[in-house]
Amino acid sequence: MVLAIAESERVRGTTSPNPPVGCVILDRSGKAVGFGGTQPPGGPHAEIMALKEAGTKAQGGTAVVTLEPCSHYGRTPPCTEALIEAGIKHVIHAISDPNPEAAGGVAVLNEAGVTVESGLMRHEVSQGPLRAWLHYARTGRPHVTWKYAASLDGRIAARDGTSQWISSEASRKEVHDMRAKLDAIIVGTNTVKKDDPALTARDADGMPLPHQPLPVVVGMSDLPDGAKLQHTALHLRTHDPDEVLSALAERGVVDVVLEGGPTVAGAFWRARRIDRVLAYIAPALLGDGPAAVLDVGVSTITDAVRLTVEDVTMSGPDLRISAVPQN
Amino acid sequence: MVLAIAESERVRGTTSPNPPVGCVILDRSGKAVGFGGTQPPGGPHAEIMALKEAGTKAQGGTAVVTLEPCSHYGRTPPCTEALIEAGIKHVIHAISDPNPEAAGGVAVLNEAGVTVESGLMRHEVSQGPLRAWLHYARTGRPHVTWKYAASLDGRIAARDGTSQWISSEASRKEVHDMRAKLDAIIVGTNTVKKDDPALTARDADGMPLPHQPLPVVVGMSDLPDGAKLQHTALHLRTHDPDEVLSALAERGVVDVVLEGGPTVAGAFWRARRIDRVLAYIAPALLGDGPAAVLDVGVSTITDAVRLTVEDVTMSGPDLRISAVPQN
Ligand SMILES: NC(=O)c1ccc[n+]([C@@H]2O[C@H](COP(=O)([O-])OP(=O)(O)OC[C@H]3O[C@@H](n4cnc5c(N)ncnc54)[C@H](OP(=O)(O)O)[C@@H]3O)[C@@H](O)[C@H]2O)c1
Ligand SMILES: NC(=O)c1ccc[n+]([C@@H]2O[C@H](COP(=O)([O-])OP(=O)(O)OC[C@H]3O[C@@H](n4cnc5c(N)ncnc54)[C@H](OP(=O)(O)O)[C@@H]3O)[C@@H](O)[C@H]2O)c1
Repeated sequence: MVLAIAESERVRGTTSPNPPVGCVILDRSGKAVGFGGTQPPGGPHAEIMALKEAGTKAQGGTAVVTLEPCSHYGRTPPCTEALIEAGIKHVIHAISDPNPEAAGGVAVLNEAGVTVESGLMRHEVSQGPLRAWLHYARTGRPHVTWKYAASLDGRIAARDGTSQWISSEASRKEVHDMRAKLDAIIVGTNTVKKDDPALTARDADGMPLPHQPLPVVVGMSDLPDGAKLQHTALHLRTHDPDEVLSALAERGVVDVVLEGGPTVAGAFWRARRIDRVLAYIAPALLGDGPAAVLDVGVSTITDAVRLTVEDVTMSGPDLRISAVPQN
Repeated sequence: MVLAIAESERVRGTTSPNPPVGCVILDRSGKAVGFGGTQPPGGPHAEIMALKEAGTKAQGGTAVVTLEPCSHYGRTPPCTEALIEAGIKHVIHAISDPNPEAAGGVAVLNEAGVTVESGLMRHEVSQGPLRAWLHYARTGRPHVTWKYAASLDGRIAARDGTSQWISSEASRKEVHDMRAKLDAIIVGTNTVKKDDPALTARDADGMPLPHQPLPVVVGMSDLPDGAKLQHTALHLRTHDPDEVLSALAERGVVDVVLEGGPTVAGAFWRARRIDRVLAYIAPALLGDGPAAVLDVGVSTITDAVRLTVEDVTMSGPDLRISAVPQN
């Protein structure tokens, strides 16, 4: 399953709106003979890729998959059928398919004499490569991560507005690597006016990485002439986070990062449309300057937006805090 | 040395302006036969306490001490003399005494045929129980820890001023335990007006712990009639952090926590008189309300007060970040 998760992770960002599934085929003796990850929409699923590599060695073997194999005819034929035809005798998957029309794979497999085991490393998969897609499958909305970089005292810029660089090179590199796995990045019109960001995923030399997220700008104003995002971004003229998310869901966007600024981040918090916080906290103090987020809809301490810390690591000198809203 | 450090830590907070030293006496066979920590000013030093417990078993043995034994006549006779008289053959200490009038212990011991080894677990001791005292011995100023509790977005209260409780019960308990090891706690007059704090160290049932720090209030205004600190606090009518610190050093204060508020914290930062930051960051967002610190003297990003993170731990649900200024 560890290898199947690695396959899942490898294709994350390239499969939406389909899940980034990973599959490993073991032969009769338990040796890994085929690896596969879901191909971009319209292309074969993970199981098909792995079976292709395994060839006849799949006969009598086991398929280890991060998600329950589908049993319905979509753009591609059902994976259950392919597994049965290849002579697979056991299927082990981490997560049952929450999608009613894709589910039912277990019954089909059992009927064909294939044993199915479910739940292996469920947590690692549901919090890992399939996290955003599971949220999307459950709610119909893209999974939103609010990512920001601030000083220890919660400022995103100094008194005079300068902000380059609050966070370290290590953190900025991490952010670019994360972008290369995303479907879309959202910013407000004012961030475009102030910073003129490109919102591309680049490597250390500034070269674009293979997969690029869709840049999305939210707000009524026109983008300034000559802005880097003027012709590349999807510009959504609304202030309503739900309109933003449904426009993105329609486009098959599953995994989104909200990069702010503080006004748009506040709007998403008020609408309770943030599923995860990823804070890069630089060990620095500014004592003045704009805050990371404005008006989250809280006026008194007992109403504070309470989070649960999932993970804290160091990113170079910075703290990287991952947290999820309680409720 | 681990046991000597525990002795040092045990008496920390009760020895100022003397160092909280710990000592363990090992007999000829290496068995620990005496333990001691420095007694309050005027009382015996750690070595004397440990020798007393060891009695004749010290003969031919080893003294393990967190600080080089003193060789001068102060309020108490020199420890080197007592060690030699007790028949100690080896001395192992973590840190050489930075105080010129106390130093020279090694020479005296060597002359009497005692071998001396220096530097064992130097880091653990200098960053541990002797940290504040070493700073005080080197600079003549108390060691200042700025302690605060804030939300992830850097607020110490909500929009309406409510702040109880931002941090968790676990963090508040830690703060009370820390107070019981301190010489003094500093707040500004406005914190007294707003919060009427007692600044005492209490246990979980609200009962006072044995050692209490000196409460210090800084600012020109009178304290409100009936304020808890009105008759207990040292009120320093100044805005100058250096005046505060020299008034405290005169009183033998070595280890101080600055509890704010944001105005006084800013003044100490501008004067570069903060030696350590201890931030309790609650995983919560407020989006508005007062910031943890005001005006640290930074107007542009390149002048940010840069810190180095020493340690990050969880305190219940909160993050506890310890950091020191770079320079
Ligand atoms: N450190 C970081 O992580 C980070 C990340 C991003 C940005 N920033 C900084 O953030 C600053 C900009 O912050 P900002 O808050 O002014 O900009 P913003 O949040 O990017 O954009 C604000 C604009 O978004 C539009 N908008 C969309 N939904 C809205 C809603 N529900 N309510 C109100 N307005 C809505 C409005 O524009 P219309 O008038 O066009 O409708 C509003 O003026 C920049 O200086 C940038 O450097 C920092
Ligand atoms: N969450 C936390 O960790 C924490 C800790 C402490 C306080 N707080 C909160 O902080 C709030 C109070 O903050 P604050 O900033 O108003 O109060 P503050 O820093 O406690 O006190 C400010 C006052 O200190 C005096 N002062 C001393 N040195 C000064 C200097 N160099 N420059 C200017 N003034 C100086 C001035 O009073 P004079 O006019 O008398 O000279 C000034 O008005 C309270 O609501 C409290 O709850 C939070």
